[in-house]
Amino acid sequence: MKAAVFRGTGHPLEISDVPTPAPGPGEALVRVAACGLCHTDLHYIDHGVQTFKTPPLILGHEASGTIAALGPGVEAWSEGDPVLIPAVLSCGKCAYCRAGRENLCRNLAMLGNHIDGAYAEYITVPASELVRVPPGLALDQVCVVADAVSTPYHAVTRRGRVRPGQAVAVVGCGGVGLNAVQCAVVAGASVIAVDKNEARLSLARELGAAQTFNPESVSDPERELRRLSDGGVDVAFEAVGSAATVRLAFAALKPGGRLVVIGYLAAEVALSAARLMFFELEIVGSLGCGAGEYPEILRLVQAGKIKLAPVVSGTLPLGEINDGLERLRRGEGVRWVVTP
Amino acid sequence: MKAAVFRGTGHPLEISDVPTPAPGPGEALVRVAACGLCHTDLHYIDHGVQTFKTPPLILGHEASGTIAALGPGVEAWSEGDPVLIPAVLSCGKCAYCRAGRENLCRNLAMLGNHIDGAYAEYITVPASELVRVPPGLALDQVCVVADAVSTPYHAVTRRGRVRPGQAVAVVGCGGVGLNAVQCAVVAGASVIAVDKNEARLSLARELGAAQTFNPESVSDPERELRRLSDGGVDVAFEAVGSAATVRLAFAALKPGGRLVVIGYLAAEVALSAARLMFFELEIVGSLGCGAGEYPEILRLVQAGKIKLAPVVSGTLPLGEINDGLERLRRGEGVRWVVTP
Amino acid sequence: MKAAVFRGTGHPLEISDVPTPAPGPGEALVRVAACGLCHTDLHYIDHGVQTFKTPPLILGHEASGTIAALGPGVEAWSEGDPVLIPAVLSCGKCAYCRAGRENLCRNLAMLGNHIDGAYAEYITVPASELVRVPPGLALDQVCVVADAVSTPYHAVTRRGRVRPGQAVAVVGCGGVGLNAVQCAVVAGASVIAVDKNEARLSLARELGAAQTFNPESVSDPERELRRLSDGGVDVAFEAVGSAATVRLAFAALKPGGRLVVIGYLAAEVALSAARLMFFELEIVGSLGCGAGEYPEILRLVQAGKIKLAPVVSGTLPLGEINDGLERLRRGEGVRWVVTP
Amino acid sequence: MKAAVFRGTGHPLEISDVPTPAPGPGEALVRVAACGLCHTDLHYIDHGVQTFKTPPLILGHEASGTIAALGPGVEAWSEGDPVLIPAVLSCGKCAYCRAGRENLCRNLAMLGNHIDGAYAEYITVPASELVRVPPGLALDQVCVVADAVSTPYHAVTRRGRVRPGQAVAVVGCGGVGLNAVQCAVVAGASVIAVDKNEARLSLARELGAAQTFNPESVSDPERELRRLSDGGVDVAFEAVGSAATVRLAFAALKPGGRLVVIGYLAAEVALSAARLMFFELEIVGSLGCGAGEYPEILRLVQAGKIKLAPVVSGTLPLGEINDGLERLRRGEGVRWVVTP
Repeated sequence: MKAAVFRGTGHPLEISDVPTPAPGPGEALVRVAACGLCHTDLHYIDHGVQTFKTPPLILGHEASGTIAALGPGVEAWSEGDPVLIPAVLSCGKCAYCRAGRENLCRNLAMLGNHIDGAYAEYITVPASELVRVPPGLALDQVCVVADAVSTPYHAVTRRGRVRPGQAVAVVGCGGVGLNAVQCAVVAGASVIAVDKNEARLSLARELGAAQTFNPESVSDPERELRRLSDGGVDVAFEAVGSAATVRLAFAALKPGGRLVVIGYLAAEVALSAARLMFFELEIVGSLGCGAGEYPEILRLVQAGKIKLAPVVSGTLPLGEINDGLERLRRGEGVRWVVTP
Repeated sequence: MKAAVFRGTGHPLEISDVPTPAPGPGEALVRVAACGLCHTDLHYIDHGVQTFKTPPLILGHEASGTIAALGPGVEAWSEGDPVLIPAVLSCGKCAYCRAGRENLCRNLAMLGNHIDGAYAEYITVPASELVRVPPGLALDQVCVVADAVSTPYHAVTRRGRVRPGQAVAVVGCGGVGLNAVQCAVVAGASVIAVDKNEARLSLARELGAAQTFNPESVSDPERELRRLSDGGVDVAFEAVGSAATVRLAFAALKPGGRLVVIGYLAAEVALSAARLMFFELEIVGSLGCGAGEYPEILRLVQAGKIKLAPVVSGTLPLGEINDGLERLRRGEGVRWVVTP
Repeated sequence: MKAAVFRGTGHPLEISDVPTPAPGPGEALVRVAACGLCHTDLHYIDHGVQTFKTPPLILGHEASGTIAALGPGVEAWSEGDPVLIPAVLSCGKCAYCRAGRENLCRNLAMLGNHIDGAYAEYITVPASELVRVPPGLALDQVCVVADAVSTPYHAVTRRGRVRPGQAVAVVGCGGVGLNAVQCAVVAGASVIAVDKNEARLSLARELGAAQTFNPESVSDPERELRRLSDGGVDVAFEAVGSAATVRLAFAALKPGGRLVVIGYLAAEVALSAARLMFFELEIVGSLGCGAGEYPEILRLVQAGKIKLAPVVSGTLPLGEINDGLERLRRGEGVRWVVTP
Repeated sequence: MKAAVFRGTGHPLEISDVPTPAPGPGEALVRVAACGLCHTDLHYIDHGVQTFKTPPLILGHEASGTIAALGPGVEAWSEGDPVLIPAVLSCGKCAYCRAGRENLCRNLAMLGNHIDGAYAEYITVPASELVRVPPGLALDQVCVVADAVSTPYHAVTRRGRVRPGQAVAVVGCGGVGLNAVQCAVVAGASVIAVDKNEARLSLARELGAAQTFNPESVSDPERELRRLSDGGVDVAFEAVGSAATVRLAFAALKPGGRLVVIGYLAAEVALSAARLMFFELEIVGSLGCGAGEYPEILRLVQAGKIKLAPVVSGTLPLGEINDGLERLRRGEGVRWVVTP
């Protein structure tokens, strides 16, 4: 089969012919329909972040497809069934899985990192991990649910616990941030979207943001953000991964408010412990999502409450994946998808 | 001033001239703009339920108005400010108020029950209890927030804790039930509205219900309701007040599900303790709302997420209040409002 | 190996020689050290409740032991390791397991019900399900953690969410109830133990109950229980399984209180829906525990906070299991254990 | 009456004769029995932190006493009743009070800061704020409940939400830290107490700590603390107020763990956002306690679960208060109390 293989930092992905994997006991062979391109891939390709499996490695962790074949002992699926493939596989047996926090699984395996991913025509996955895609959803859009939608969905519903009537700020309106905007809107919040890019702010309004704010438009963004939210927000989401945006999001909180950090940031961030204490603020991290959340998300997509069309910028054939990654580097569009 | 006075069970309300009250220290005199008619009034007028204050008593607990005058020591308000008057006044100092459960206040006073209500041109209220109405909202619709909207809002957000992606059933689509439907939709749920009246089901769909179900349309409503919800709902709301509807709502739960009882029901209800235990079901009561929830609700009304027009059936002058109560008795419309 | 085999309702267990099972891939063979006798067994033996596996079936679901042999692919264990065997095996992959509610697993298998249990010299169990017993704990006491302790522990910590400073009532002081008493004491609550049997009340005091109450000692037990608790308890546990005790526990709640039903009861229970609604009461079921809770419990046993000696009444050889079951029938002692 | 008056930073408190206050409507005059000395006082006296009321000001916010006289309209109290005076008075009417977070009250008044405090023979307090002291408790110990016990109690039960079976670290074993240790023990946790002072660690063990750790005893305290807790704790409390201890407490968390910051620290603290995100850690502030928590605490004191004798180092007459403050400066003892 054809696959886009990662050979090591500094090299473009290589479109190669590799053996089609065969499904073992309990596994399904999935014909990949589409796979989203993610900034995480650029960490490996451009910035020297190590993958857990030593290259060569097939990248790609945001995939949908159809069942192509089943290994021994699999009964719940039939050939042709449309499926979403979770970005991360969990063990179901460690203390974290048993406590309902499978995204913290001690034995997790991420596609395109610990094991081969889905920039390929086929992939094998334990059948118990696959998620059924409801009828009528386009697989080349649904794939982005595996990470670009599910990560902010988890952040909004499980970590932010956003509920109707709350004021929410989303700092950073890239793929993750825009989906945080629409998830918070679905949860009934009034959302202020924050970004330096007016096109993204415009898209945030389209996805339901009640207000938008460009921090470069004022001299004191922290004060202005609190003013816009009438004294501060209940929940702020950081979806960039920089110290400045973490600090801005923290500054936006009203007393008792909660900051959810979704973005990745290697450096430490300095924050006021006194402000945290005197106002009983909360700062919580959010990592991916549990596989149990995918069916919920797909139902919301099916109901038209979570919209995928505005956050999928376009589709490319697998052979042009390096072009797609280049668009990602340039910050062009929201989410690009390849179809093998 | 003119007021509709309750003289005792079996008598229509009497439109009388009574002394206009004067605001004491810390109080505001509110010129009533509108007051909703509620089934609770019929309990007193028709069914012999005793009011805490012995009649004569001015009924009416669902009111909006404008500040007409202020007693000594009130600084937060100005004449003409538009306000919502909570249906129930809480003390702020008992153990329940301090724990954030002011709807369970040990010293509560309900308008039109413990103290004179708002079927009148004026009413005095402790100024700290008044809720500011945002600009642009019609006072003759906003009044129904004081009970018909806030009671299901509390039930959905605080007692049901409904969140995105959940399946919800609302059994009974009168005023409270219809507002439970729209509150659950605001919270991101997929809602099945249940009623025997097709007009109400139609209104439920207009307010966002994904499915409707008439239990008289099938021979085994419990089974059908579970089938419609693909095995049962996460949260069911009982908004009628009958043993049969409590049982239907209980039967609609999936394992781990929660039943919220909003309706009033004098009789005991028999339920399966084994089903409760084996599936870890939950049954919780819901009573009114805390005054702290009103500003949230008004923001959602202002944002257009909670709609009042579909649930206010019409407005009558105070002098025709007995006609309005008669419509209520006949089950005509959703919510009727009088304007003094 | 020797095993106590259930042949069908109405027959005593039969001590037979049966083939020793061999551990398959991922399984461990456990040499059973001890297994507790449970009322659930009497439901099968005396009362015609059907087991999921058709007899002949080895009963016994409350067992400890040591690793005797390992099947292919098991690396986490060594021969001789002391283990607790969960009463119920969960799949780790269904929606309930993924949500951290593995006690509601859709594919669960209970020892001595769906599959052969531990009234035997050996048993095979998936190795991932076994729980390591900390050094220094006696296996012939630890076995009761698998059900008699873990069921009330789950009820107290997960379903009752008991915390310091709360008032708790435990209605029924058999094995489950007495352990509910000590778990609630560990959680910092002030506990009223309720039973008709003075010896059990005395044991409840020994396990930390602040007060005891014999409902046969007064004419109005509901009123007296509320008086003892100064107006009602925050959380009440029903640990008998009768309509009368469910009603007494419900009556003991203060406004906002929660009733946790642990006992099994085939009949329906009639309760006041008005009381539930006006006081925002909660009634929740509790079923077994999640396997993830066992390590917590074992740490508390090791720390001496949960005491096993007072709740294990004695040990019998496997060959005398029918004598032990007879003591159970007579209500003698708290928990009896057999050792193969 | 005699009172210890604060004249401004740099001056010892001045024992003066000042007018005895008279209780206004709704107020009680309390004869002060005892008042604890707190580091907060040293912030004003030594470090130039401004009080909200400009000096002269009577300091002292940790007091108990008996009712001496009642203002008009107070019915719930009688002369001689023993009372605890909350350190902070809340309004009961702002959005935070209504949400059950009265410690974040927007109109709060702290004794000995916004208004005159209790280093005096008498003080007037709104009667609704007073907390009844159960019979048999010594007022010259109970006074420390008003802050030194209630602040960590709130941190442990409301912000840390510690429950049975959890592993807890308390970093810093001064007055607040030692009481955090005993509150976490009451909640059923296994506690590691951390301090550089061996005498305090010894006291921590006496109060129930399962382990103690002196970070100066090893070269890599973070690693050692995680080793001691078998991979990290569920909840860590910072009770010192320094960047180093915040960082140590953060480092002690296991995946999914929560850090509660109780200590006051003017500087910013730099922490790893990546560690926060990848392990879904939580950092939450904790401020004082809500007045609704005092009755719970007093019940636990009465039950002997929270012990006051070990944390009250001694009693001094009011005239020797500057000696007591000097002991506080030297870090001598845990908590000193003056009796007017």
